[in-house]
Amino acid sequence: MSTRVRKLARNVAIVGAGTSKFGAFANKTSRDLFLEAFSEALASVDKGITAEDIEALYLGNFSSDLFEQQGHLGPVIAEWAGLLPKPSVRIEDACASSGAAFRQGVLAIASGACDVVLVGGVEKMTSLATERVTDTLAMAADGVFEVRQAAFTFPGAFGIVASAYLDRYGATPEHLMHVAIKNHQNGALNPKAQFNTTIRSIMDARLSRLRERGEAIPDWKDEMDFLHDPRSNPMVAWPLRLFDCSPITDGASCLLLAAEDVAKSFTDRPIHVAATTQASGGTLASWEELTSIPAVRVASRQAYEMADVTPEEIDLAEVHDCFTIAEVVATEDLGFFKPGEGAVAAAEGMTARDGAKPINTSGGLKAKGHPVGATGAAQIVEVWKQLRGDAGQRQVTGRQLKYGLAQNLGGTGGTCVVTILRQA
Amino acid sequence: MSTRVRKLARNVAIVGAGTSKFGAFANKTSRDLFLEAFSEALASVDKGITAEDIEALYLGNFSSDLFEQQGHLGPVIAEWAGLLPKPSVRIEDACASSGAAFRQGVLAIASGACDVVLVGGVEKMTSLATERVTDTLAMAADGVFEVRQAAFTFPGAFGIVASAYLDRYGATPEHLMHVAIKNHQNGALNPKAQFNTTIRSIMDARLSRLRERGEAIPDWKDEMDFLHDPRSNPMVAWPLRLFDCSPITDGASCLLLAAEDVAKSFTDRPIHVAATTQASGGTLASWEELTSIPAVRVASRQAYEMADVTPEEIDLAEVHDCFTIAEVVATEDLGFFKPGEGAVAAAEGMTARDGAKPINTSGGLKAKGHPVGATGAAQIVEVWKQLRGDAGQRQVTGRQLKYGLAQNLGGTGGTCVVTILRQA
Repeated sequence: MSTRVRKLARNVAIVGAGTSKFGAFANKTSRDLFLEAFSEALASVDKGITAEDIEALYLGNFSSDLFEQQGHLGPVIAEWAGLLPKPSVRIEDACASSGAAFRQGVLAIASGACDVVLVGGVEKMTSLATERVTDTLAMAADGVFEVRQAAFTFPGAFGIVASAYLDRYGATPEHLMHVAIKNHQNGALNPKAQFNTTIRSIMDARLSRLRERGEAIPDWKDEMDFLHDPRSNPMVAWPLRLFDCSPITDGASCLLLAAEDVAKSFTDRPIHVAATTQASGGTLASWEELTSIPAVRVASRQAYEMADVTPEEIDLAEVHDCFTIAEVVATEDLGFFKPGEGAVAAAEGMTARDGAKPINTSGGLKAKGHPVGATGAAQIVEVWKQLRGDAGQRQVTGRQLKYGLAQNLGGTGGTCVVTILRQA
Repeated sequence: MSTRVRKLARNVAIVGAGTSKFGAFANKTSRDLFLEAFSEALASVDKGITAEDIEALYLGNFSSDLFEQQGHLGPVIAEWAGLLPKPSVRIEDACASSGAAFRQGVLAIASGACDVVLVGGVEKMTSLATERVTDTLAMAADGVFEVRQAAFTFPGAFGIVASAYLDRYGATPEHLMHVAIKNHQNGALNPKAQFNTTIRSIMDARLSRLRERGEAIPDWKDEMDFLHDPRSNPMVAWPLRLFDCSPITDGASCLLLAAEDVAKSFTDRPIHVAATTQASGGTLASWEELTSIPAVRVASRQAYEMADVTPEEIDLAEVHDCFTIAEVVATEDLGFFKPGEGAVAAAEGMTARDGAKPINTSGGLKAKGHPVGATGAAQIVEVWKQLRGDAGQRQVTGRQLKYGLAQNLGGTGGTCVVTILRQA
C-alpha cells in the first residue's frame, strides 16, 4: 500500500456541535432539519459564535436529488443558514458523506484558506416509500457489478458478510442480537434518538397492546425470545432480521471547526482533531475475505499513525452499525478485537457503556437512526459530547476519557472515514 | 461582505491535464469517459507519472444518481482508475462541481495532507431523454422557490436574464448571436469539441442537404440569416434561441496537481495556481439586479486579491457560457468590461481568439459541449494548454500569455468558482 500519512500544516479543533432530533418527520425538509442542528451547534459554543465568523460550509448529503428533487444543496442550505456568500460544497460519499465533509472541513482550515468552518450533514429519507429508499440506497453500491449483476441491495450485501462471519467463526445470530440490545439500551438514554427506547420496552409495549386487544400472548420472557420470534423480528436477508438493520431516518448534524490558534476565542474546552483519514475500497467481490472490510483497515491504520495512538488507547468509539454485523466487523477491523472475537465481545458486554470499550454510546445507527448523509458528522458529535463530559445520562463515567474515534462507512466499503478526537 | 482572502500554506501547480472527446456517446459510461481523460492527463506529464504517485481523487459530478443510477461515484471511479485505496471524494456543486473539486484538490495539497492529487469531472448525460435532462438540471436551482413556485428550468431563468439585459442596455439578440458564432469558430479548431464546426459550416451543410432533397432553399447569405430563421434556430425561451444554448454532452476532464516543491519532478513547465476562490449566491429573486450574478462578482474579486492581479492583467479566460447571455454577463461581472458593454465587446470581436481579451478559446460550453460535472475542470484544462502554448490550432499567438482565468457557474448563480493560473 502506497498511501502516506502526513502531518497537516495547522491543527484543528471542534468548538461546537449539534444534531436535530432524528426520526420520521412528515413536515420537515432538509432545510428545517439542518437549521435545527445548526441552532444547537451555535448555542453550544461556550463563548458564542455568529454566522459572520463562519467562512465555509462543507455539507454531507447522499442524495437530496432523489429524496427531495433538490440537487446543488450546498448553496441552498448556505442561504437558509444565513451564510451567503461563503463557499458551500456538497460532499457525497454515500453513507460516509458527512464523515468525508468533516475531513474536508479540517483540510480547508489546515490549508490556510479558512479559520472557522461549518461542517454539516443532512438527509431527508422518509419522503420516499420504503422500497424506493432501499433502491435509492443501492445506488451507493457499484451499479454494474453489485446492483445489476449481483442484484444486491444493502441488506443482501451485509447478509452475505454476516453469513460468512457466522460460518467462519462459529458465531450465532444471538451474538448479533446482543449488538442490537446494547445499542437500544444506549439509545434509550439519548433524547435525540429515533428509537429512544430499549428492545425490552418495545416488547413490553407490544405485549400490552396484544393484551388490550385480547389477542394471543406470545411466550416472550426476555428480549431474546422477542428477537427470535419471526412475528416480532422478521427475517430481512438471512441471517439478518429486522432488528439487525438500522432504520430509515430524517436528520441533520453540525460541527463548528476552528484552527487551534483561534479556537480559544470560542471555548476554553476545545476538542482536538487528532486524526482524520479516508480510504476507498472496491466491490465486495474484490475483498480478500468477506469478514473484513479493506477500506476500514486502511483508514484506521492511517488514523492511528496520524494521531500516534494504538487501538488500546481509544477510550470509546462510534462505529458504523448500519447492520449489527457491520458493528462487529468494524470493531475487529479497527483493531479493538481480534478477527472473530468481536461478536463474543459484544455479547459479553465489553462494548456496553460500562464495558472495557464502549461502542456506540449514542445508540448507534441502529437506535439513534441513520439519516445517511448526516450520520458521519453525528457520530463525531457524540464523541465530542462524551469527551467534553456533556453526554448527559449516557455519559461514560468512572474513567478519564482522552481519545474517542468515529468510523463512518460508505456503500459496500467503497469509502471509510476515520476520525480520532483528543481531549485537551 | 465578511469573506476574507487568506494565503494558502503551500503553493500548488498543475503538472498534467486532459479531457475525453466531448459529445453524445451511446456506448460510453462515466467510467469510460473518465479513463479517456485520465489517460490523456497521465500522458501529458512531461517527466512521467504513475497512479502510485497520486494520493487522492476529487471528482466533480452533478448527478450520476439520476443520469446513470450510480451514486457514490468517487470510489467507483477510483477503483476503475487503479487508485485504491486512496481517498476519493465526489464534489457536487451543480455545473460548478469540478471547479469546486479543483479547489478542494488545491486545498488538500495546501493542507499538507497530500503532495499529488488528481482532480476530475465527469457527466454522462445523453442516457436520458432531452426533456428529462432539462428536468434533472432544474434540480440545480432552488427546488422550492425557483422550480416549484417560479416554474423555472434553466433556459427560462437565463431567458429572464437576457430579457432584462436587452431591455436595460439596449442590446439586441444579434449581439448574443455573435457570442455563439465566435465560440463555434473556436470550437472548429478544437478536435475534442462536441461541435467541431463553425455555424457557417452547419448552415452550408444544411443547405446542401436541402438541395440534395430538392427542397426549397432558404435565402441565407450568412450565419446571421441562418440564426434569425426560426426553421434553423427556433426560439427556446425568449429571447434565447437554440444556438444561444449549450448542448447536452457526455464528457470527462482531469487535472494532475502537485505541491510546487514536488512539481519539478514531474515537469519543467508547471503552471501555477495563482488563485482559487468560491462563492455562494441565493435564488434569482434575491439578486440586486437581473443583469449581474452576485456570486461571480464575489468570487472574482477574491480571486484577483488572492492572485494580486487586476482584470486587465488576465490574458485570456474560459467563462461559463451555458447560454450566450451568461458569457456576456460573466465578462462584465469578472470586470473585463463595464456593465452593459459586454455584448458590444463580443459583437465587435474583442473576445475573439485574436481580440484584446480572448474568451472561450476552447469553443466554450456552447461549442465544446457542457457535460455539467466535467465543465469546470475542462475550462481549467484549456487555460493550462493555452498558458503552456499547447493549444494547437487555437493557440492564442502574438503575445506573451501570463495569466489565464476560468469562471465556473453552478445553478442560477448558487455557486461560482474562479481559478487564476499563472505561467512561470
